[in-house]
Amino acid sequence: MAVYTHLGSERLAELIASYDVGELVSAKGIAEGISNSNWLIETTGRDGTGARYVLTMYERRIDVTDLPFFLGLLDHLAAEGCAVPATIHDRDGAACREVEGKAVALIEFLPGVSPSEPSPAQAHSAGRALARVHLAGTRYPHTRQNPLTAENSAGILARFSESRLAGIDPDLPATAARASDIARQMLGGLPESIIHSDLFPDNVLMLGDEVSGLIDFYFAANGAMAYDLAVTHAAWAFDPRGETIDAAVGRALVAGYESVRPLSAEERAALPLLAQAGCLRFVASRTEDWFDTPGDALVRRKDPMEFARRLEFYRDAGQGAFA
Amino acid sequence: MAVYTHLGSERLAELIASYDVGELVSAKGIAEGISNSNWLIETTGRDGTGARYVLTMYERRIDVTDLPFFLGLLDHLAAEGCAVPATIHDRDGAACREVEGKAVALIEFLPGVSPSEPSPAQAHSAGRALARVHLAGTRYPHTRQNPLTAENSAGILARFSESRLAGIDPDLPATAARASDIARQMLGGLPESIIHSDLFPDNVLMLGDEVSGLIDFYFAANGAMAYDLAVTHAAWAFDPRGETIDAAVGRALVAGYESVRPLSAEERAALPLLAQAGCLRFVASRTEDWFDTPGDALVRRKDPMEFARRLEFYRDAGQGAFA
Repeated sequence: MAVYTHLGSERLAELIASYDVGELVSAKGIAEGISNSNWLIETTGRDGTGARYVLTMYERRIDVTDLPFFLGLLDHLAAEGCAVPATIHDRDGAACREVEGKAVALIEFLPGVSPSEPSPAQAHSAGRALARVHLAGTRYPHTRQNPLTAENSAGILARFSESRLAGIDPDLPATAARASDIARQMLGGLPESIIHSDLFPDNVLMLGDEVSGLIDFYFAANGAMAYDLAVTHAAWAFDPRGETIDAAVGRALVAGYESVRPLSAEERAALPLLAQAGCLRFVASRTEDWFDTPGDALVRRKDPMEFARRLEFYRDAGQGAFA
Repeated sequence: MAVYTHLGSERLAELIASYDVGELVSAKGIAEGISNSNWLIETTGRDGTGARYVLTMYERRIDVTDLPFFLGLLDHLAAEGCAVPATIHDRDGAACREVEGKAVALIEFLPGVSPSEPSPAQAHSAGRALARVHLAGTRYPHTRQNPLTAENSAGILARFSESRLAGIDPDLPATAARASDIARQMLGGLPESIIHSDLFPDNVLMLGDEVSGLIDFYFAANGAMAYDLAVTHAAWAFDPRGETIDAAVGRALVAGYESVRPLSAEERAALPLLAQAGCLRFVASRTEDWFDTPGDALVRRKDPMEFARRLEFYRDAGQGAFA
């Protein structure tokens, strides 16, 4: 959550002039995005009545060879009527430019705020929006392999000894020990599309109870649609520490999803395992980050236990987690 | 440059509802301000056509008992036609509210971007805007003593031994040794008003060559107007390392200022000494911060030598620095 690169206003004005969006009026670095720098940009607009955009500079983690996939996906989904920001192409038609050696994209600004404590009505709207992305995603011609499989997560966790894991929390080794078992049970064959993979409430903009935008598609990949729904369930339906489920929010999310795209019996049956696999991914990435981030760093480390607890909940409750 | 406090969107919407500005539409934490959290807020506006504001939460360094002085000053200057953002008062007429134990203010959003490499035309406009603030400031009924006098700066530097100062830079002790001498020469009796005290290009918003807003008045206090002009000269007319003066920018700044408020002979004669005192203040505060900030902290330490070099320049060049 920071602006990693200083871009002077003269340089910004020059960059904005590469697009047919009017002249630069205002630019504020915004505290958004995990590993990108972002600016909220205002211009005079094409017609002089003003327009706003988000300028994203890709700093780390994101492989720039994936950018055409991500930016093309936004354009595809926006064209299909999904609530996602379209990219603005420059005067030469490119969705992506280079500034000071880094890739940048100018992206449509969408109104809305992210709920901190989502209501069932908001979860229902998010479920509908996710299903629409899945349906539209089946028509996206490009592919990206999901690097965050359960097998991959199990591999990450296997690198840390039981005692190191216990150093984070005494309950973590037991959850980590289930990783390879979860990975082994994962079935192929569920219907696939492009999945968001990271649809936390932070990545959903809402006006009142209605989704105004889904953002941050930088984990998007090909994958099982029901897995994406299960990940979203895990991200929305618990208190922050992962101790208590908000069953009404979870039910509304799935109901909203099914109002647009009903699940098959196989998909429904797979939800508890898919949710465990989704939690496993966050347990693995947060454990890895924990050991990579000094305890006294200014960046707050995210506790892997928040998702280890959710994982245990899905394991214990089975279908009950979705009832 | 950060957002220090997380404010959930529900809490933000509730706060915004205390003001007659319409409903919350968007809120982005912005990377601005040294020790405050700031959000760029969009609402539906009083008339439904949309409006933007900056919400500032006062985190540190700022003494909340000074807030009525600072916020009242913005209202006074805006009412006098100066290019500063007015504060928005809540439904009860208050300029300042409390959220989660911290003071917050909703402030008008002004368009414009800060120049990284100001041109003479931009410096001329900044000089005019500063002079207008000085003239309007004489009619502001409240007072705040300037805690950043030359004497105060000399006192800070006297706390560090020559060898500690030399550890920052071998040339720093010689500059620090002049501190008490500069403080002793400072004369009272120059015409006073409310001074900004920190008008770096960062704190000036411009549209093209014209000032659209002066911001960040949290160092404002009563003081000599010519001192404020000299500080602004030191902040604008050098390369970042303080090695080379851009005489054309400096001349334009003073000419712009004098086109609105001509300097007296005494003020002009005092400029070289006032500029040294202004530099001394940044040398002192940066030296103090240097020793307070670990070398490996994520916050970049500002080099006191950037202003020690400027100080030596003003000392050597005298009136030539303004010619």
